[in-house]
Amino acid sequence: MTLSVQTDEHFMQQAYKQAEMAYEKGEIPVGAVVVANHTIIARAHNQTEQLNDVTAHAEMLALTAAFDKIGGKYLKECSMFVTLEPCSMCAGALFWAQLGKLHYAASDPKRGFSQHSKNLLHPRTEVASGLFQEESKLLLQKFFAKLRT
Amino acid sequence: MTLSVQTDEHFMQQAYKQAEMAYEKGEIPVGAVVVANHTIIARAHNQTEQLNDVTAHAEMLALTAAFDKIGGKYLKECSMFVTLEPCSMCAGALFWAQLGKLHYAASDPKRGFSQHSKNLLHPRTEVASGLFQEESKLLLQKFFAKLRT
Repeated sequence: MTLSVQTDEHFMQQAYKQAEMAYEKGEIPVGAVVVANHTIIARAHNQTEQLNDVTAHAEMLALTAAFDKIGGKYLKECSMFVTLEPCSMCAGALFWAQLGKLHYAASDPKRGFSQHSKNLLHPRTEVASGLFQEESKLLLQKFFAKLRT
Repeated sequence: MTLSVQTDEHFMQQAYKQAEMAYEKGEIPVGAVVVANHTIIARAHNQTEQLNDVTAHAEMLALTAAFDKIGGKYLKECSMFVTLEPCSMCAGALFWAQLGKLHYAASDPKRGFSQHSKNLLHPRTEVASGLFQEESKLLLQKFFAKLRT
């Protein structure tokens, strides 16, 4: 049996699936996965409504699940795929985790960390963006349009 | 029976007691309390070692406990007293919580949110600092000195 190595696109698609799950539950649709050795070790979506906690962003929940999975406090060899540019809280959390690589889909011109400073992330964290950008943005727009009606 | 209204100093002393508890457990000694209507509704100290989670800062744990206590997602009428200037992650969390007032004891010239931008906090959050500054700083210094030996 040959195991194919998954692509970044596959991982972002899995993050997007998490965002869709959030959407279905009436949560702001953002999803995230954490990848180590080409394998997803944590999946999460935004749960601020369900948990009644504004800190329950997809990234925070995925981080805590990843620490638990690897039994360590740092994610230097891991990547996170998230459907929206992290806010300053989440970027600060990724700093402490010393995340290896961050991939985000849609930019967040209002609350994205890069509006404050790119230095909110750890200097060793690589950053890539754009995969599933349109899909992720459309899902958010659909959510907020529904919320207004 | 007359109930005296507690002072800011009392609340910071309670946050400092949390920091001492962290110290006793081998955690970086930072403590926080959340106050609503002159009453402490949440207390927490840093638990990054015990929970094996770099996001388990005193402020994050106190916030989640406070949301749970009040059954709401916003702390507009609340104050947080914390023994060290919040990092960017915690400041970002306080932003989402729309905290009414932040009191911190010691400044953090390395990781404090004000090193990045004062805008990490919500524009409505008032900020005060200095209470228990020396005590909180000394406790941290004592902790790191012990760690090095």
